[in-house]
Amino acid sequence: MIEKISSTQNAKVKKWQHLTTKKGHQKYHQYLVEGWHIVGDAITAGQPIVQIAATPAQLAQHQAQLPANVEVFEINDDIAKKLSDTVTPQGIFAVVEILAQQHVNATEATGGWLLLDRIQDPGNIGTMVRTADAAGFTGVVFGQGTSSRYTPKVIRAMQGSQFHIQLTEGDLSEWVTDLKQRGIAVYGSALDEHAQDYSAVEPTADLGLIMGNEGQGMSAELMAATTQNLYIPIKGNAESLNVAVAAGVLMFQLNANLR
Amino acid sequence: MIEKISSTQNAKVKKWQHLTTKKGHQKYHQYLVEGWHIVGDAITAGQPIVQIAATPAQLAQHQAQLPANVEVFEINDDIAKKLSDTVTPQGIFAVVEILAQQHVNATEATGGWLLLDRIQDPGNIGTMVRTADAAGFTGVVFGQGTSSRYTPKVIRAMQGSQFHIQLTEGDLSEWVTDLKQRGIAVYGSALDEHAQDYSAVEPTADLGLIMGNEGQGMSAELMAATTQNLYIPIKGNAESLNVAVAAGVLMFQLNANLR
Repeated sequence: MIEKISSTQNAKVKKWQHLTTKKGHQKYHQYLVEGWHIVGDAITAGQPIVQIAATPAQLAQHQAQLPANVEVFEINDDIAKKLSDTVTPQGIFAVVEILAQQHVNATEATGGWLLLDRIQDPGNIGTMVRTADAAGFTGVVFGQGTSSRYTPKVIRAMQGSQFHIQLTEGDLSEWVTDLKQRGIAVYGSALDEHAQDYSAVEPTADLGLIMGNEGQGMSAELMAATTQNLYIPIKGNAESLNVAVAAGVLMFQLNANLR
Repeated sequence: MIEKISSTQNAKVKKWQHLTTKKGHQKYHQYLVEGWHIVGDAITAGQPIVQIAATPAQLAQHQAQLPANVEVFEINDDIAKKLSDTVTPQGIFAVVEILAQQHVNATEATGGWLLLDRIQDPGNIGTMVRTADAAGFTGVVFGQGTSSRYTPKVIRAMQGSQFHIQLTEGDLSEWVTDLKQRGIAVYGSALDEHAQDYSAVEPTADLGLIMGNEGQGMSAELMAATTQNLYIPIKGNAESLNVAVAAGVLMFQLNANLR
């Protein structure tokens, strides 16, 4: 039996809407994803989906593919519009559990790790998670002051990569210390020409890479703690690269598994 | 004498607002830029600025730096809000001439050229222009079906790079033919593993690089016309890279001037 919801004032609708905000994520440890592309991805990846809400058209198309143990709700276009972050919503949504803190221990982490130091823009965050996935990194650590990883804009830019690699929150200073203690190089990213040219660095299988705030760059404290700080030589008159582009150039250069 | 404008209904204000749209750009061959960072950049770069509009606070700060031959208007916060693309406008705007078609001849172009085939997202377009500048490319060619290069979101993402490198519109098929005829390699970007791994390509000083539509990639016609199509090996489960990140990885690899 599929429960039908027809009012945008319904309590479930209000809760789902709340699950697109950082406050909602903290309160319920759940978040909302939108569109079949990502809902289907979450199902394929065996993510802990608890509820699915869809318009009749979307149900007709996808009902057979929905997992058996998930509550399904039929919604109308008004509700879809209310829940959606887009102008023309597809009309299918899933509530996904945020896995119990997914705590990764820096004293055991291997492979490539991207460490985000106070990154602000949701599009940049999501794009970096997607790029880390494509570059074969193991995971991404969200340092203090980095925006939520479950808001609609971040989710859209991640393109499902949150289901493929590990996302965790952590103290970046501790991560740097723990990785270095185990002989794993941690690279900072600098705009400073006195830093090391990134293209001269030998790729490795295990590494940490820190990307810093869009305006201010990495914190001085982290800068001083890294194994080495790298810069990308800028040729033209541009003052800097977009942080997600810079992260892409660095990750594809540094990960030995790609070579 | 600085003319004071106090009504948001003023004809100049309406025209300036129109200069944030593609229609306005086509009608007046001018566009509006916002914020001192970019207005100052335009002045430094000797761009053809025709008018500047600023709040009293911004005028007090920057009036001495404004060029002598430019009409200056004092506006209030309401007008600034109306003209602005941001939530908290800085309060300074400039009307810049779109240089008479800036037609670049593909039969004479040298250096690196980024060719955009039906790219849709303004943020991606602007970021690619910024990255092309940073990677030492000579210019960017906007193929048919690529969004306007003077809308507020594109301008914000370009971060002033439109003043540093050449931007032009053009027929991409003609560009490919003309460059190849002069022995200059034109690379396409593919998701196809049968294409050439980009990291095996020898960097060159003169080259063309085509990036395709976010959803569909490059057109089949262009794909068939290139010297070689390249792919970036994807390691994880990500299906693809963001187009601006991919463009960054490719441009920094392929431009011999960076080596």
